[in-house]
Amino acid sequence: MAGRRRAGSPPPWTADARAVQARVRALRARGARIAFVPTMGFLHAGHLSLIARARDGGARVVVSVFVNPLQFGPREDFKAYPRDKGGDARLLSRAGVELVYAPRASAFTPVGHATRVVVGGVAEPLEGELRPGHFAGVATVVSKLLHVVEPDELWLGQKDAQQVAVLSRMLTDLDFSVRLRVGPTVREKDGLALSSRNVRLTREERAQAPVLYRALKAGRAALAAPGTGRRAAAAERAMRRVLRAAPLARLDYARLVDPASFRPPALGARRGLLVVAARFPSARLIDNLKVRWSGRAA
Amino acid sequence: MAGRRRAGSPPPWTADARAVQARVRALRARGARIAFVPTMGFLHAGHLSLIARARDGGARVVVSVFVNPLQFGPREDFKAYPRDKGGDARLLSRAGVELVYAPRASAFTPVGHATRVVVGGVAEPLEGELRPGHFAGVATVVSKLLHVVEPDELWLGQKDAQQVAVLSRMLTDLDFSVRLRVGPTVREKDGLALSSRNVRLTREERAQAPVLYRALKAGRAALAAPGTGRRAAAAERAMRRVLRAAPLARLDYARLVDPASFRPPALGARRGLLVVAARFPSARLIDNLKVRWSGRAA
Repeated sequence: MAGRRRAGSPPPWTADARAVQARVRALRARGARIAFVPTMGFLHAGHLSLIARARDGGARVVVSVFVNPLQFGPREDFKAYPRDKGGDARLLSRAGVELVYAPRASAFTPVGHATRVVVGGVAEPLEGELRPGHFAGVATVVSKLLHVVEPDELWLGQKDAQQVAVLSRMLTDLDFSVRLRVGPTVREKDGLALSSRNVRLTREERAQAPVLYRALKAGRAALAAPGTGRRAAAAERAMRRVLRAAPLARLDYARLVDPASFRPPALGARRGLLVVAARFPSARLIDNLKVRWSGRAA
Repeated sequence: MAGRRRAGSPPPWTADARAVQARVRALRARGARIAFVPTMGFLHAGHLSLIARARDGGARVVVSVFVNPLQFGPREDFKAYPRDKGGDARLLSRAGVELVYAPRASAFTPVGHATRVVVGGVAEPLEGELRPGHFAGVATVVSKLLHVVEPDELWLGQKDAQQVAVLSRMLTDLDFSVRLRVGPTVREKDGLALSSRNVRLTREERAQAPVLYRALKAGRAALAAPGTGRRAAAAERAMRRVLRAAPLARLDYARLVDPASFRPPALGARRGLLVVAARFPSARLIDNLKVRWSGRAA
């Protein structure tokens, strides 16, 4: 029997759900804990950090690579979303992954496919409002992947914070027996959160892209400032002010929200999430920062 | 270790999802195949026949008893739906069931529950049109139950034929790794399909209730009649004619449909499903009959 996969050996790739299930069940029968990292490919250090954290925790790691058409709106960038199977394979060959599940779109959501997992509440504001159908597409595909992989742990990145909250709600609501684990956002040296979409930024856009993280830090500073009341509004003003300084960025939103509901924090709350989204001509970027404060923020 | 549960020993009841999962996983680890029969309680010979068939196939049987609020419309009979835990326990004590999962509504769909599994296509006509939200409620709860019980087989009754088609679509679309098994409709001697709702019929309504099955048989006879073309219409006319003879029954629909789509059969199809629904003052009843024919039906 094969032992734990060494970090140097390339994992098998398969589009076959039954093969994935058989391999996972065999691993589990030998006592392994299974961690699952769903991705849309074009992997970067953020994905690799999720894999490394899951491995460090002692789990065997299954990665999926699938650009999910259901989560893109008709005017969104499904076709333009970056893809690089060769690059992904190289990165994964050194990541100590057991198996890569890369379903074919034609088989994964064939003609006649008619089921959607629809999350309400936290899926409705912000990204939910700006990208109708996006979270239903995410929830549907993650449900499918979980049914195939049957992992003990689902690993997601904090960068997509509302996605984390939506999927957390879904896992609870539908009684999925999987534990959600969240890895921190990995950033470039200048603060830009890693994202597969960053590659599409022009040089000029890339130079301005760290403005999202700067805005978040300005929001955090405003929250920490002494004084009473209306600090949420002050934080949002501070974020907008920083974002306006980047001429290529068009603001979608800059908000202080409750991290579970993505609505304004309750009166008396002491922690929250600053969230920003901005459109550059070549790519839309999002970012967020966990914050705590003393006294009232609302 | 306990052997296979004898038909005489009462199964444990639990509202605890973790206890169900632990028991099922222990059974599977010993090589058992798990069959799951979801019910809304008030059990009758139709439910018992599903259990018996699953047992005859060699599986260990888990039954759920849960009147699912999500599948009732605001004007429907959730509160009036018959319940009899004592009677159910007596019947199940002799049925050779491993375990009964009876979740509490407050824990199963607590405040804040915001996720729905929504099936399109086959869930839209007939029952879907007359009972908005019904199939989303069914699909959501069955998803939850499947996540807790993790069975190898899901057993459903043919009496709820559109529910079978909707859940079949859902299982395929969401990659559930469970095999759907369908047990035939069990009938009273006079042809009335068993249903928990039959108990609510008055004596007069009960006397007229076999009209649904008589209508289906009249429809089948019309399909078998010699002649060409328009036989679907002739079958539907024949069913309506029979149903009109029952003064207490108000017709919801009487149709010949394709058993997968619940739309009219394709030109050149040779088999289909006759489906009827009628409202009596005290309960709404549905029934169906598989049919085959030669020549064109449309």
